[in-house]
Amino acid sequence: MFTGLSAFPLTPLDEHGIDEAALGRLVQRAAAAGVDSFGVLGSTGSYAYLGREERRRVLDTAVAHAGATPVLAGIGALRTRDVLAHAADAQEAGAAAVLLAPVSYQPLTPEEVYGLYEDAAAELSVPLVVYDNPRTTGFAFTDELHAAIATLPGVASVKIPPVPADPDAAAARLGALRALLPDTVTIGISGDACAATALAHGADAWCSVLAGILPEVCVALTRAALRGPGRPSGAAGADDADPARALSARLAPVWDLFAEHGSLRVAAAAAEVLGLTASPSLPRPLRPLDAEARAAVVRALEAVGPS
Amino acid sequence: MFTGLSAFPLTPLDEHGIDEAALGRLVQRAAAAGVDSFGVLGSTGSYAYLGREERRRVLDTAVAHAGATPVLAGIGALRTRDVLAHAADAQEAGAAAVLLAPVSYQPLTPEEVYGLYEDAAAELSVPLVVYDNPRTTGFAFTDELHAAIATLPGVASVKIPPVPADPDAAAARLGALRALLPDTVTIGISGDACAATALAHGADAWCSVLAGILPEVCVALTRAALRGPGRPSGAAGADDADPARALSARLAPVWDLFAEHGSLRVAAAAAEVLGLTASPSLPRPLRPLDAEARAAVVRALEAVGPS
Repeated sequence: MFTGLSAFPLTPLDEHGIDEAALGRLVQRAAAAGVDSFGVLGSTGSYAYLGREERRRVLDTAVAHAGATPVLAGIGALRTRDVLAHAADAQEAGAAAVLLAPVSYQPLTPEEVYGLYEDAAAELSVPLVVYDNPRTTGFAFTDELHAAIATLPGVASVKIPPVPADPDAAAARLGALRALLPDTVTIGISGDACAATALAHGADAWCSVLAGILPEVCVALTRAALRGPGRPSGAAGADDADPARALSARLAPVWDLFAEHGSLRVAAAAAEVLGLTASPSLPRPLRPLDAEARAAVVRALEAVGPS
Repeated sequence: MFTGLSAFPLTPLDEHGIDEAALGRLVQRAAAAGVDSFGVLGSTGSYAYLGREERRRVLDTAVAHAGATPVLAGIGALRTRDVLAHAADAQEAGAAAVLLAPVSYQPLTPEEVYGLYEDAAAELSVPLVVYDNPRTTGFAFTDELHAAIATLPGVASVKIPPVPADPDAAAARLGALRALLPDTVTIGISGDACAATALAHGADAWCSVLAGILPEVCVALTRAALRGPGRPSGAAGADDADPARALSARLAPVWDLFAEHGSLRVAAAAAEVLGLTASPSLPRPLRPLDAEARAAVVRALEAVGPS
């Protein structure tokens, strides 16, 4: 459950509510495509913008449509009290594990973040994934803090920010963290653009935004990357000799748009363009991409080919 | 209402609830000391950690204890929908104005932040203060964005982050922003350590953490700074010739602790040490200062003298 491809689906919503039918369809098609797990109510699932009842409905919908594929549920909140409430709800709804990011308003100290995970771990009966996303939480983990938290009961995986594009640098980054973690704890990677490299060089899982929209190509990329050996960077590793890198290269226009506009806004636009959701599908103050960026999304999807 | 000293009181709370009696006492004593307004449910008031009902109770308590002193209410939230709900509640509770910070999870674009203020301004019947606090919101305003938002209906003031300690640099910073704002919009300053300098060099208001704990000295500092002319930095401006700077210098140990631990944690510790609130008084994951830092708070309060 903590290896392979984890799809992080959008929670399609607007100012009037959540489109549960669209969410159910997103989950069902990704499950059918063979993703290994779901990260529901992740950053791409807009958990931070949803109230407790809304989160519960999202999770119920995802669990109902995921079939046998395990559902991991985001439980992050600014306040520990709310994290614990979300944890209880997630377990009751049938989440196979939970994802916890140290969301912050007041910048948090390492001791406070450790305390947050300690408080959560004490209340959980399902495994916990540490969700390290400094771009949204404002908190930057050190590897020492990851190592300390990874020894708490139930910690099963650590989801880290993008690794460097260079394969050697990626391998070094993943190796350094791996050396500090218990063998039972896997490493998941965020940042879809680096997934092919990361999976080939030590990451166990890809926590993927795009897999919520284009699951087939992401399943193919994951299988290829995990099958292939890590290539020495000096080797003749042309894309055509490395199917995972070739697939990732085909997706480069998508990765570029993720970098420019944020993956959430691009994923929402792609879902809208593909008719998977209505428009808008994001909570204000977030706004849909403008017409020009939306046209670029259409072109990027065309370059990827039929989904 | 948008000039002079605005006290930003703590909302004393723990995992069991809000200590409304302690909040009422904090507000009452600051009103008695002569603060010009309150910024209730500001960052120091832990608004980001409170639910809608809790915010309403905090505001009701503050309004009930503020007497004739106007109460400004923080209405920030990650989601526009919640901002609008808080705005309606604040108006109903008798807030004289509202404070809005662009709280973020997904990093916001300038267009999204403008849209947030546009959406809020359209629903408000009381004045709006733009709350620019990049340390907690993760969003950095440009002066151009401030200028654009300041033209929206009802915008009365802009609360900006600390200005440089150097008087000339502070005057330049405040002058540059002032030149871009309508004459009807005041500038409030955050960052208690720079208040004496900022008020003497163009800021209209001091949005003060310490004024919620030690209101008398902050009232004295504000009056002295606004009375005294801005001094040319080359002048013989020794502290003994400048009462505001002298008062601020006496408070230097407090400012140092604010810088080291964050003003909220220090204000909470000070309130606890002074017997104004129980301990702990902050929402987890925030933790009280440890024994060593707490001892430093005691020493700093002793250096300030009797409150």
